[in-house]
Amino acid sequence: MEKFFKPRGIALIGATANQLKGGYAILFNLKQGYTGKIYPVNPRYDQIDGLQCYGSVRDVPDPVDLAIVFIPAERVPAVITDCAERGIGHVMIQSAGFAESGQTGRRLQAELLNTARDREIRIWGPNCMGLVDAHRQFVFSFASSAIWDEGLSAGPVSLVVQSGLLSAGFLIDHMTHGTMGISKACSIGNKSDVDECDILDFLLEDPQTKAIALYLESINDGRRFITLCQRAQKPIVVLKGGQSKGGAAAAMSHTASLAGDGAVASGVLAQAGVIQAQDFGQMMDMARTLAFYPQVQYAQPPAVAVMTYSGAAGIVSADFIERHGLALAQLSNGTVASLKSLFPEWMPVGNPVDLWPAIEANGPQRVFPEALKALSADPQVDLIVLHVFVGGRIAGADIRTLARIARKAGKPLFCWVLGARDQVRSFTLDAQAQGVPVYREIGRSIECLATLKKQPARVRRAPAVAEPVQFLTVENRQLLETGGGVLDEYKARRILAAAGIPVVAEAVATNEDEALTAAGQIGYPVVLKALLTGLVHKTEAGLIQSGIFSDAQLKEALVRMSAKVPDTGRFLVQRQLAGEIEIIAGFIRDRQFGPCVMCGLGGIFAEALADRTFALAPLTREEALAAIQRLKSRQLLEGWRGQVPVDKPALADILVNLARLGCTNARIQEVDLNPLIITAGRPVAVDATIILTRE
Amino acid sequence: MEKFFKPRGIALIGATANQLKGGYAILFNLKQGYTGKIYPVNPRYDQIDGLQCYGSVRDVPDPVDLAIVFIPAERVPAVITDCAERGIGHVMIQSAGFAESGQTGRRLQAELLNTARDREIRIWGPNCMGLVDAHRQFVFSFASSAIWDEGLSAGPVSLVVQSGLLSAGFLIDHMTHGTMGISKACSIGNKSDVDECDILDFLLEDPQTKAIALYLESINDGRRFITLCQRAQKPIVVLKGGQSKGGAAAAMSHTASLAGDGAVASGVLAQAGVIQAQDFGQMMDMARTLAFYPQVQYAQPPAVAVMTYSGAAGIVSADFIERHGLALAQLSNGTVASLKSLFPEWMPVGNPVDLWPAIEANGPQRVFPEALKALSADPQVDLIVLHVFVGGRIAGADIRTLARIARKAGKPLFCWVLGARDQVRSFTLDAQAQGVPVYREIGRSIECLATLKKQPARVRRAPAVAEPVQFLTVENRQLLETGGGVLDEYKARRILAAAGIPVVAEAVATNEDEALTAAGQIGYPVVLKALLTGLVHKTEAGLIQSGIFSDAQLKEALVRMSAKVPDTGRFLVQRQLAGEIEIIAGFIRDRQFGPCVMCGLGGIFAEALADRTFALAPLTREEALAAIQRLKSRQLLEGWRGQVPVDKPALADILVNLARLGCTNARIQEVDLNPLIITAGRPVAVDATIILTRE
Repeated sequence: MEKFFKPRGIALIGATANQLKGGYAILFNLKQGYTGKIYPVNPRYDQIDGLQCYGSVRDVPDPVDLAIVFIPAERVPAVITDCAERGIGHVMIQSAGFAESGQTGRRLQAELLNTARDREIRIWGPNCMGLVDAHRQFVFSFASSAIWDEGLSAGPVSLVVQSGLLSAGFLIDHMTHGTMGISKACSIGNKSDVDECDILDFLLEDPQTKAIALYLESINDGRRFITLCQRAQKPIVVLKGGQSKGGAAAAMSHTASLAGDGAVASGVLAQAGVIQAQDFGQMMDMARTLAFYPQVQYAQPPAVAVMTYSGAAGIVSADFIERHGLALAQLSNGTVASLKSLFPEWMPVGNPVDLWPAIEANGPQRVFPEALKALSADPQVDLIVLHVFVGGRIAGADIRTLARIARKAGKPLFCWVLGARDQVRSFTLDAQAQGVPVYREIGRSIECLATLKKQPARVRRAPAVAEPVQFLTVENRQLLETGGGVLDEYKARRILAAAGIPVVAEAVATNEDEALTAAGQIGYPVVLKALLTGLVHKTEAGLIQSGIFSDAQLKEALVRMSAKVPDTGRFLVQRQLAGEIEIIAGFIRDRQFGPCVMCGLGGIFAEALADRTFALAPLTREEALAAIQRLKSRQLLEGWRGQVPVDKPALADILVNLARLGCTNARIQEVDLNPLIITAGRPVAVDATIILTRE
Repeated sequence: MEKFFKPRGIALIGATANQLKGGYAILFNLKQGYTGKIYPVNPRYDQIDGLQCYGSVRDVPDPVDLAIVFIPAERVPAVITDCAERGIGHVMIQSAGFAESGQTGRRLQAELLNTARDREIRIWGPNCMGLVDAHRQFVFSFASSAIWDEGLSAGPVSLVVQSGLLSAGFLIDHMTHGTMGISKACSIGNKSDVDECDILDFLLEDPQTKAIALYLESINDGRRFITLCQRAQKPIVVLKGGQSKGGAAAAMSHTASLAGDGAVASGVLAQAGVIQAQDFGQMMDMARTLAFYPQVQYAQPPAVAVMTYSGAAGIVSADFIERHGLALAQLSNGTVASLKSLFPEWMPVGNPVDLWPAIEANGPQRVFPEALKALSADPQVDLIVLHVFVGGRIAGADIRTLARIARKAGKPLFCWVLGARDQVRSFTLDAQAQGVPVYREIGRSIECLATLKKQPARVRRAPAVAEPVQFLTVENRQLLETGGGVLDEYKARRILAAAGIPVVAEAVATNEDEALTAAGQIGYPVVLKALLTGLVHKTEAGLIQSGIFSDAQLKEALVRMSAKVPDTGRFLVQRQLAGEIEIIAGFIRDRQFGPCVMCGLGGIFAEALADRTFALAPLTREEALAAIQRLKSRQLLEGWRGQVPVDKPALADILVNLARLGCTNARIQEVDLNPLIITAGRPVAVDATIILTRE
């Protein structure tokens, strides 16, 4: 990837002197900041803007590592061959009209990719806006020249985007508003070859990148992406576009992207410690927050102190702190005493700390630093939000001093600023130069601060790997190898039991005697089911009877059921379990992410609310526990209304074992435990389905 | 209230020449824009800044309608008497140190209120920042002089706030950033006398106010507030601070406000058609949206068309449109055909409409107006979001032309803008001058647009009124008059039945014969309960038995239960009902809002998610139906998984009748129907409690 980011020379195929065209814009941008050799290619010119122009890329002299292509789509495949002939191994295609545009475009894209693969050329694009590197001042893009107007300000966040906007207009907006500079912005368009994984891999090792934000409409290789995220030593924020039906359709037409199942993506991204955003500005705000405090982690929800000059702003902050699952710090007595010395007698001191009366009494120059010192020193305080107004009487928050106090105490500081337009901008620049992130809305400030709580400990650890398959009997292994479609439910549960998943006590009976013996061993009440292959709605067909309390009732049920399925002769006698909570769990193969496990609350409410979560398989027990904690209605598992709490480690083991089972054999398409009944806190599989590929 | 807003003369008690003090700031601000007479009052000066200064407010000449007070709290009560002597009927107290500050302050506030009531003086404040009227250029406030720096820009939104910030710093921020001008900003602080209702009442009739935004920490008179909202011909947005535990505590210390039950407030505000915000900026964005389009209502979720120059921005917009319960417009064939003529051949046209390829082919000057014309003319399109970039090559969206096209077609237009800082500001000012609201984030643009869908039809209609009590028998009425605490459950259900609420078939039995007869009439299966007074956990005590299918089982249960409560001798034989869905409903008396009904889904999932909604009692059937629609899990009522849909009109009638019953007698503190069991779609009360006041 190095040669895309730091080429020694660039051939620009499609350079033009027509200032209204993209081919001119790329040349202009290259000349502004790129320090290597630039070779415009266009047979219609001898030179453009003082640079010699070449008739073909074949004629370009050394050094040349990269070709940037901006010519009509139909002429691109031929040019790839030319690049190969010239020995150029890296081509960035910014033209559109490929897979995003229908049949012809799809064919063109396939054609150029074939050539590229044959000739070992890496392709970036097509249908992209290339690359901006603000540290090096490189702009390899037809982005508007307005991007230079206030200088390309360099910062710690790199962007990877399936969008031109975010690498052009959005940058211009952010740079001129002073919200934050950028490290690299990579627009990957149709990502026919170079994709988010290649670039993420590169950026994870890039010293000028402290945090990475990605806008993606699809993920080409979900497993590689997640593996990269899991081993990342840097915070990652992802905005996944196309989560709605309309959005997914638009993603197909924008960058030929299949958006995939949003719930699966959301689960596995959370599993990998990735922060998820919904909007562009929010994504950048989260990323710069994490870039400022990349190594901060909290085992518990961090405790926040709020320093404000407005009671109302403090109250609204406290409301957001609760909404985002953070804690309002309980100030220790020493802190309260220190603060009290700044306040008039009558003023009670709490958190949020409403400084206004103290400022009136003692002036901002004294109050802000002293209050911050007291709060920073308090072991009960993890994070501090400072509200600042600039452009009025109380301007007096010297951010340089304040930033130093917080930094010295090791307490992350965040600013919400309000005030006159120009002062707000210069305060923002000053504060961020001091390493203090600044926000324009209270809700956003707390939302961004809450991203710190979700950060995983960044120790490099091996991801969970699939174990060898010793745990299955030869018979079970054979069944998985040879069966097809929906497995017999009894056999399915034998396999699950062998995989370490607790299943309900049950036995197969082919006649009355066997049934009575089974019931005697299992204990009443029992459920009687006719054993049939395939998916049958047993309840509707009268082939399932619960509430059997005695031998007599069992006999009666057998007679009745035998009459309905005279040929079968196989019945299941199953212990009848009852529990107030039902859980569903499963194993699936997702198109983007491959093997995954699912966990959710059962019952129609949970289903209506789609309260389920996903995680990549295989997974560790810690990852399984974390997945369970992502459920919206997780408090039901914690002994709601005096019930026995659900044994979460046991539930986590079920997920781990489901994943282990699913990964033993690629023929396992799906496993459904629906439901797991919770009795005395322990989950037991009652109904279970294993679906194998059909040959 | 007129004299607070348009006084012919103002006495400023606590005026000073010390430029660091609030008493000077008020004087400075008065002199900047107020056109009436100004009388500084302070015995220590003869004159201040060229104005004659008076030793006492008693000495001030005519005309004087209003006194503004900014002196230490302990001297305020005496000054109220002085104002009374001078014949000033309106006093605005901006000093702090009253009820918000503890015991002494509470006493001072009570004292001054007593005097004011005796002498018929209206008090605004204390602990407030007064009033800003941007249309008249009146600033009756100690707000920083920076408020004048870029001019007080007048706009259509009025603010009512329990906060100084929102009437000072926030205004400076908004005016200098050009987001929007303001009509009036009223800071009411401790609102000891003049409160949100008084001001809302005034603003509803104020011709310069098109929409009203309120930041409130408490609502003094909830019923009056809701009544005002219900009859409002203008959109109202409320941000209720103190919804969290920490926020509520801070509200108590900020403005001595009891924040109250957030769920009740949220329900009744929704019932009254009030839009609810969570953050300051969001509140203003919603209010100005509604000020631009105050009369727009939609029966169905409105269909949105998105015009963008960025595929990614279109996709993210589509995702937000779904999240906010709006529809992405399905363009009609004619529109697609018109749009296709602007696009290159290969480009498929959908919604979001990604204009970029069209702009490249035909230029922005042609594409923007023609595309907007086509979309505006489409009957399938209700609202249009336009994405604009300013400061680059594609700047070419002439907002004056575009606004005219949309206005002519009667289609509300919304802009999301990105670009260079100064151009963004001037575009925003231009667009808003054309009546088109502009937003800086995609999520916010869609969130604000979604407020239009929640707007009630603004026809003045009479709120529901309590009916006379004919429906109760003399005996029932007597019971309500004389009982206390928890009513006997059987009697409670008799009262509910009389009030028109369907209750389960049941009968009281005092011996075996009566029980058998009752069961015979009701039909098996039945439930047997021991009838006891007071709240008893019957299940735990073994005083309830379900699943009785025969005379024999009933006899057996009677014997067993009689042994446990030998003295009682009264039993209830009740039809046993089963249903997959349970609903809870109730009547309560809320401290802020008085009589309210509650409705929610039963079962532990719904409880854990607190899925309940509230509405003011009495209420109309339409209001009851709307309350049911506010439930998060409402789709469960609509025939989830092949069930019979819940009869919503029947459920609404239950709420209407609960309200009617609760309002018949002030002694009814609470009614709980927990659960209502749904059988064949119809809700039936099975357990029911009526709690009366104890004397």
